[in-house]
Amino acid sequence: MKRVSENIPGYSYGAADVAMSPVSTRDLEELKTSAGFAEEDQRYLQLAGEVLTGQTKQIVDHWRSCIIASIPNLARHSRSPEGAPIPEYLTKSNLRFEQWILDTCLRPYDQDWINYQQEIARRHTSAKKNQVDGVQSTPFVPLRDVMTFVAVMNETIKPYLATGGNSVEEVEKMHLAWCKSIQMQLALWIGPYGDTRRPPTEW
Amino acid sequence: MKRVSENIPGYSYGAADVAMSPVSTRDLEELKTSAGFAEEDQRYLQLAGEVLTGQTKQIVDHWRSCIIASIPNLARHSRSPEGAPIPEYLTKSNLRFEQWILDTCLRPYDQDWINYQQEIARRHTSAKKNQVDGVQSTPFVPLRDVMTFVAVMNETIKPYLATGGNSVEEVEKMHLAWCKSIQMQLALWIGPYGDTRRPPTEW
Repeated sequence: MKRVSENIPGYSYGAADVAMSPVSTRDLEELKTSAGFAEEDQRYLQLAGEVLTGQTKQIVDHWRSCIIASIPNLARHSRSPEGAPIPEYLTKSNLRFEQWILDTCLRPYDQDWINYQQEIARRHTSAKKNQVDGVQSTPFVPLRDVMTFVAVMNETIKPYLATGGNSVEEVEKMHLAWCKSIQMQLALWIGPYGDTRRPPTEW
Repeated sequence: MKRVSENIPGYSYGAADVAMSPVSTRDLEELKTSAGFAEEDQRYLQLAGEVLTGQTKQIVDHWRSCIIASIPNLARHSRSPEGAPIPEYLTKSNLRFEQWILDTCLRPYDQDWINYQQEIARRHTSAKKNQVDGVQSTPFVPLRDVMTFVAVMNETIKPYLATGGNSVEEVEKMHLAWCKSIQMQLALWIGPYGDTRRPPTEW
């Protein structure tokens, strides 16, 4: 399996301590059907993964430094409660962010993948945020922040998909497969969010 | 305001009995920022609305008859508990579905729009599903079904956006604005889903 680095702190894909998700591979087949995610999409995600390999650092820097950093309600989730940067947190979580791009494209969507979606979601909720890196930051990322920023990721990844010399049609299909996968991942992230209570002041 | 029909059963946009959402227009500005939804997107949604006007019946028929009808876990939400079609329910809700396309493109995103997003979401949860049309069907649409089917709507609306004789670049920008709006709407729909309990057997 392709890794963005030999050492990715806190990256535990497929490890024994990743909890089992209540979602089965059969449930996932239903999600695929609802999202129109077919075998063709799997093939185009593989192609996307080949194109994006080697570009993941640039993409995550683009998202973190050029976009998230300038949006206070997103930037706060990787800063201290006083709003100070936590460079080490970024370094570590950015590596996982990079690897997530490759995993989205290249991993088989099996039970390990489903389980790690749950793990990723929990690391954004009050159940586990900050714990893996031992930092103090916002207690959770509201699901609405995830839901909306996805639109930015979907938009901005497209030019990177176009750098591999593929035809316009192939780039379109890679992008489409990416967007479908993201909606499926969002569907998988809902569960862990439902398990944690939102403070009454949050909507 | 453009309407797909003079009489849209159960369509209560802006009406006094639509509950006030806890989400303010200021909150919505934050969502727009997180989704990268800018003034340019508002303009392209207007353009999209002009292109889609007159095509909404065809689009909703495409979604309902060609896609949803062939996916059992989606089709059941507009059928009786025994799986029988409820033609009257479809006729009514399809008109609202059509109008939702125009509202997405042409309505100002103000407090009325926010409130109606909440109303739409509640009509998909156990709080209000089936009530407006007085039918018996599934008690709610799981949020995961909404989340994933969005990928299909986003994919399949694009050819309709391309029928207006606009340049490829303009069609891209209309589509991008549409996709951003949908993510914002999903973010607004989370709240009403959080207010209703899922049965423990549901994930």
